[in-house]
Amino acid sequence: MIKRLGAGTLMFESRPRIAGYASVVGRKEAEGPLCELFDKIYFDSRGEDDTYEAAESRLQREAARIALEKSGLRAADMDCVFAGDLLNQCVGSTFGMMGFGVPYLGQYGACSTMAQNLLAGAVFVESGAARHALCVTSSHFCAAERQYRFPLEYGAVRTPTSQWTVTGAGSCVLSESGGDIGISAATVGRIVDLSVTDANNMGAAMAPAAADTIMRFLHDTGTSPRDYDRIFTGDLGMVGSELLYDLLEREGFADFRGRHDDCGLLIYNREEQDVHAGGSGCGCCASVLCTRILGDLARGALHNVLFIATGALLSTTTSGQGKSIPAVAHLLRLQSDHA
Amino acid sequence: MIKRLGAGTLMFESRPRIAGYASVVGRKEAEGPLCELFDKIYFDSRGEDDTYEAAESRLQREAARIALEKSGLRAADMDCVFAGDLLNQCVGSTFGMMGFGVPYLGQYGACSTMAQNLLAGAVFVESGAARHALCVTSSHFCAAERQYRFPLEYGAVRTPTSQWTVTGAGSCVLSESGGDIGISAATVGRIVDLSVTDANNMGAAMAPAAADTIMRFLHDTGTSPRDYDRIFTGDLGMVGSELLYDLLEREGFADFRGRHDDCGLLIYNREEQDVHAGGSGCGCCASVLCTRILGDLARGALHNVLFIATGALLSTTTSGQGKSIPAVAHLLRLQSDHA
Repeated sequence: MIKRLGAGTLMFESRPRIAGYASVVGRKEAEGPLCELFDKIYFDSRGEDDTYEAAESRLQREAARIALEKSGLRAADMDCVFAGDLLNQCVGSTFGMMGFGVPYLGQYGACSTMAQNLLAGAVFVESGAARHALCVTSSHFCAAERQYRFPLEYGAVRTPTSQWTVTGAGSCVLSESGGDIGISAATVGRIVDLSVTDANNMGAAMAPAAADTIMRFLHDTGTSPRDYDRIFTGDLGMVGSELLYDLLEREGFADFRGRHDDCGLLIYNREEQDVHAGGSGCGCCASVLCTRILGDLARGALHNVLFIATGALLSTTTSGQGKSIPAVAHLLRLQSDHA
Repeated sequence: MIKRLGAGTLMFESRPRIAGYASVVGRKEAEGPLCELFDKIYFDSRGEDDTYEAAESRLQREAARIALEKSGLRAADMDCVFAGDLLNQCVGSTFGMMGFGVPYLGQYGACSTMAQNLLAGAVFVESGAARHALCVTSSHFCAAERQYRFPLEYGAVRTPTSQWTVTGAGSCVLSESGGDIGISAATVGRIVDLSVTDANNMGAAMAPAAADTIMRFLHDTGTSPRDYDRIFTGDLGMVGSELLYDLLEREGFADFRGRHDDCGLLIYNREEQDVHAGGSGCGCCASVLCTRILGDLARGALHNVLFIATGALLSTTTSGQGKSIPAVAHLLRLQSDHA
């Protein structure tokens, strides 16, 4: 049984294991500081595919294939796949995953999708609903720009608060056993809306959701930031991270800033790569999770971390209609056996 | 613990209960044969709202509010909400559910969403991850036409195989206890693609997915269609239902046809309402489930039914790119205590 604590925190007794993980990215990501850690790099953003959407599906397919290979399991061993992405109707995941023939549960959490997949997957594994579950998500700069903003050919100017959608996918194999890393707890996010309407400032829209989830988790578990080796957020970028510090410091969590890293600030070299406020997209925190974070946990450099992925739940329709940008953040506690 | 059978069937020992349910629809649905059963009817398809998207969110909000009321529980009692819809980035659900303040897990299964929500919710309730969970989905004819086909003002001609998107929402409160109806089993669908590319013939695209899931469930449980009082599919319509009979009869399930009803054929009077092949949309099977099906189970007219919702996992982008329409179908076995 899964134990519930307080306002939405789940404790996993058996700690569902991350038995394999992989990340596949594009050229710009490979030019960043995590270059050496990716499992596969596509230097052409469309590769062998006709469309950017098909190229995004390929990123998912390859990340899942390599994660399975590293876990020593086959697609046929998976009881369920949890997948989602930013494209309309999550077609990156549909076309990415359909070849595997695994029972499929599509998830939509925008850029929080990787955390949502792992959270739902952990519930399925802990409850016996799945022995093994595959989690995967992706984003693609060119597909996202065309869908959310402008086709690249227009050469639109970006605002300083804008973020750069990561071309990349991350995938984890969850399992009852295997590997050195387990998911020991999770907090399901609530939709938080502080009336931010600037679609070029996602960090500001998402920071309040991250603050809400982090504070609920710390309150539910009676812990404080200093109880964790490191706390990673998904893609708040420079602007959102600063806002998160403000929100948490106001509530008395002054020790948060020193323990925090944002995946949107880890994946690129902001000084040199012209990504403005940092990286974003479902593939951003998924790629950083499946390289640096899980890598550091596996080799014992980290033992006990929090991973909070945030998502902005807007569409171009609601933005065009002048609506605000509601956001959500899901949290996972990841622990290594090296502790 | 949840027991797994064969290729993706889950058995719920404690039979998570449907403690409350409600359906809210538009005028056309109210003019159909289920008129007397809906909890609330909006005779103006935009009602008090500025946009069709906001009107769709209102349908969800009202369906959830009434389902909660009927269950005797409050939003604050819910540990989790599972919601999704057909609008880009599922904004009908985001804006519909954000006011409730309940931890939120967005689902994307296109028109299979209601079954997916209940399946995931049942796993959460059975495992202890949630004591109570809210499930909700919707569709809106005007919002869907503009997004998937043409703005209504164009007056586009519809093909004979096309279906009419239901303006409606359905919501269920799942709980450890309460009510006369439980979810005793479920089968997670796989993505099935038989290369149908006609976006005006969703029934044909979805029938193979329904056949795949139904056959896996019957095989896993060692049962046959005659073991169930009634078998309901989501929105295959006239064309998809006939194709489903063909597919199942070829595999030896000749007794399926006589036990089957399709929600897309139950919600409208096809002779009089000009809906061509029948109803469709997430709100179609959700509305029929939360009126006729659960109503018949509650009053003992049915005891033991299968509910299979199908979803076509396309986007206008993939259709425009000439891609096929992959589909998925999730199955639930619903049983009443009157048996």
